[in-house]
Amino acid sequence: MSNPSLPTDAPPLSGSELEEALRAVGARRYHNLHPFHRLLHGGELDRDQVRAWALNRYCYQAMIPIKDAGLIARTDDRELRRAWLQRIVDHDGKQDGEGGIERWLRLTDGLDLPRAYVMSMRGALPATRFAVAAYVHFVRERSLLEAVASSLTELFSPGIISERVAGMLANYSFISTETLSYFETRLSQAPRDADFALDYVKRHAVTRSQQQAVIDALSFKCDVLWAQLDALYFSYVEPRFVPPGAWSPGAEQA
Amino acid sequence: MSNPSLPTDAPPLSGSELEEALRAVGARRYHNLHPFHRLLHGGELDRDQVRAWALNRYCYQAMIPIKDAGLIARTDDRELRRAWLQRIVDHDGKQDGEGGIERWLRLTDGLDLPRAYVMSMRGALPATRFAVAAYVHFVRERSLLEAVASSLTELFSPGIISERVAGMLANYSFISTETLSYFETRLSQAPRDADFALDYVKRHAVTRSQQQAVIDALSFKCDVLWAQLDALYFSYVEPRFVPPGAWSPGAEQA
Repeated sequence: MSNPSLPTDAPPLSGSELEEALRAVGARRYHNLHPFHRLLHGGELDRDQVRAWALNRYCYQAMIPIKDAGLIARTDDRELRRAWLQRIVDHDGKQDGEGGIERWLRLTDGLDLPRAYVMSMRGALPATRFAVAAYVHFVRERSLLEAVASSLTELFSPGIISERVAGMLANYSFISTETLSYFETRLSQAPRDADFALDYVKRHAVTRSQQQAVIDALSFKCDVLWAQLDALYFSYVEPRFVPPGAWSPGAEQA
Repeated sequence: MSNPSLPTDAPPLSGSELEEALRAVGARRYHNLHPFHRLLHGGELDRDQVRAWALNRYCYQAMIPIKDAGLIARTDDRELRRAWLQRIVDHDGKQDGEGGIERWLRLTDGLDLPRAYVMSMRGALPATRFAVAAYVHFVRERSLLEAVASSLTELFSPGIISERVAGMLANYSFISTETLSYFETRLSQAPRDADFALDYVKRHAVTRSQQQAVIDALSFKCDVLWAQLDALYFSYVEPRFVPPGAWSPGAEQA
């Protein structure tokens, strides 16, 4: 199931062939295929398992503006910086009570997880923290093209979000439209961001090796999302081994 | 199970109290307590599960000299640099056929994993790579004192190594003294390294907050080791979900 490498002696892909190759990565590796996601939207988790998901996923949300600032900090392309800045604004908001991180906290509020506990990330699984940090470092350390390409999982997010929102509202009495407001906003933001990044990648990945790097960057990012669900499944579904120090129900009160 | 924080208004710990606090972290969080370790040394894994362990653990071994060079690169303390250099020599050897990484490859050789495949790390679990990278970045980015302290899991390694070698030799026909030569060497290297690092930490962590940072650094490192075994257990013991792209038996031939 690893990505077939492009033959190095073949001519570069056309823009639409590259897009097709990127979409093929998502079709095989995006985390909508993960068993934890299926349990989540299928209503097969209990409230504590949904709480574990929301608590851990906060770490990912919280690092997005730091990740995006890391990208802006690396480029002298003013157009790219301007476009990318909107992502930070979207996540941080322009004032208190706004932005994607705030909306994620409304979800954890709705699940009775104290904000201070969530924001401390004390209870997050180490594997969550490591995966998220790997993403931040990837964006700082790899080529700018790979950094942009690693955002392209957003190509696939409208599908998973629609599935998740419908499934969670239908199946969980403790979930409301209000607590899921994060996702509604992302339904319009993600396609705009993904369109920009896809266009950027098509214009800048012109050699075969650049195109391979872009495909690999998207695979890496799929791994980042997938590994987070692996860890949740392992600790909270089966075999339910919670690592020392990580959240278990009630720990948020301690 | 998170570490009790030291009260901030209390006086600093004495050197021996700090050592006691560090040993208490190991007693609760070191990976000899992990269910995967118990299966490994108890002879309850099959050959493919041992192969998965050796393949993934290679990623950790391979990054140790890079991690250690990252520490040396940060300090103007010549004594510290001199002492720390030995770690790189131990892992890389002075010529072909020497060093800890080479000895680890003898283990993967003995398990019929092709060297090129192992060294490419293509089949490693993403969670393994993320945990190892988190360690490398921690040593580069945190204070020098925390970087040194994160090596202190070696205080506990002679115990786990003795247990592992005896258990594996007794229980697995496909494991020999030769393939386990990595561990024999570490039995003398690790205490020397740990003594140096412990002495350094006792001399330099003099305030209460420095001491807390040292304790937290050791906890972080325990998480790095623990998370690697979580991922192995999840993918190769129960529920046996192998992430897209990661090794499954036979993939090393492809």
